Amino acid sequence: MRAPARGLHEITCEVTDWIRNSGTSTGLLTLFCRHTSASLLVQENAAPAARRDLERYFERIAPEGGSYEHDDEGPDDMPAHLRSALTHTSLTIPVEDGRMVLGTWQGIYLFEHRRKPSVREIALHLIGE
Amino acid sequence: MRAPARGLHEITCEVTDWIRNSGTSTGLLTLFCRHTSASLLVQENAAPAARRDLERYFERIAPEGGSYEHDDEGPDDMPAHLRSALTHTSLTIPVEDGRMVLGTWQGIYLFEHRRKPSVREIALHLIGE
Amino acid sequence: MRAPARGLHEITCEVTDWIRNSGTSTGLLTLFCRHTSASLLVQENAAPAARRDLERYFERIAPEGGSYEHDDEGPDDMPAHLRSALTHTSLTIPVEDGRMVLGTWQGIYLFEHRRKPSVREIALHLIGE
Repeated sequence: MRAPARGLHEITCEVTDWIRNSGTSTGLLTLFCRHTSASLLVQENAAPAARRDLERYFERIAPEGGSYEHDDEGPDDMPAHLRSALTHTSLTIPVEDGRMVLGTWQGIYLFEHRRKPSVREIALHLIGE
Repeated sequence: MRAPARGLHEITCEVTDWIRNSGTSTGLLTLFCRHTSASLLVQENAAPAARRDLERYFERIAPEGGSYEHDDEGPDDMPAHLRSALTHTSLTIPVEDGRMVLGTWQGIYLFEHRRKPSVREIALHLIGE
Repeated sequence: MRAPARGLHEITCEVTDWIRNSGTSTGLLTLFCRHTSASLLVQENAAPAARRDLERYFERIAPEGGSYEHDDEGPDDMPAHLRSALTHTSLTIPVEDGRMVLGTWQGIYLFEHRRKPSVREIALHLIGE
């Protein structure tokens, strides 16, 4: 999955397609982000302003320019780990009738915390029948 | 599930009953909150003061009255999304002998972030035998 | 599992061994922390400086010496609950070919929030075949 830039990127459609192709209609879906500078979040899928507020909020509570000991990969390195720790590495979502039981206003987001675009791997696992 | 007001509402008993009625005694329980302005938390079930401190803490780190772009539904709208992002949309808890493996002092809480009471849906999923 | 002191303690090896001994090679692993003053985190396993920054960050955003109502067990009591709420009580990780699908730089950590060392129980659950 390619994260084009820092911020929230919706992946609900890709995940929905993957479930459909799996042939499993009832079970438990797990998403696992294989990185410590990107993370997962279920959030508001209707208002782009809410996502911009979310991005700004995490930039504020885990800011670049804090005095971090660890900055091997630049000023956006340690804030990325902090923002990951505050959000989620794994998500579990029940699946019924071939669909995730998401609420009407919920979407699944890959939250990229680094400035530079990179390829991110999210492991998907579905157990059921 | 009805959240009577903003704050932490214990749902451990309802979940325990649901497991008992499911007839499954060993497996994995998933709770999934179908909203982006309410969330889930496992916390201290003994001291009401600890819960009040928790509620005040989240009111302080994701305050109303911040300058948010998104305020379609009032000043408690965006803080609700932020507090959800900082806590949990899904929880997974192993079940043994028909009971969740909660520690002695752990309870499961629905964390309502909006001022107005509303009906909240939490999907429960239990896989096992 | 013994947490020798406050801070992040890597448990990846113990969990890997437990999976190997379980005889299950494909499935879903759940870790559940049976405490409300210790928690779980997947984080950077290469740079000790990143872990020190993480520990300092949580000491700063959920500080001792805040004016908490709940302090039955001392000044590190309520901050421990807050740091737990901001991180994770449960983690789910897919297992393939007998190994967790962790990324290259990911380790699993028990995050002890109390000053005094104590014995911590983490329930492990693996469903699969």
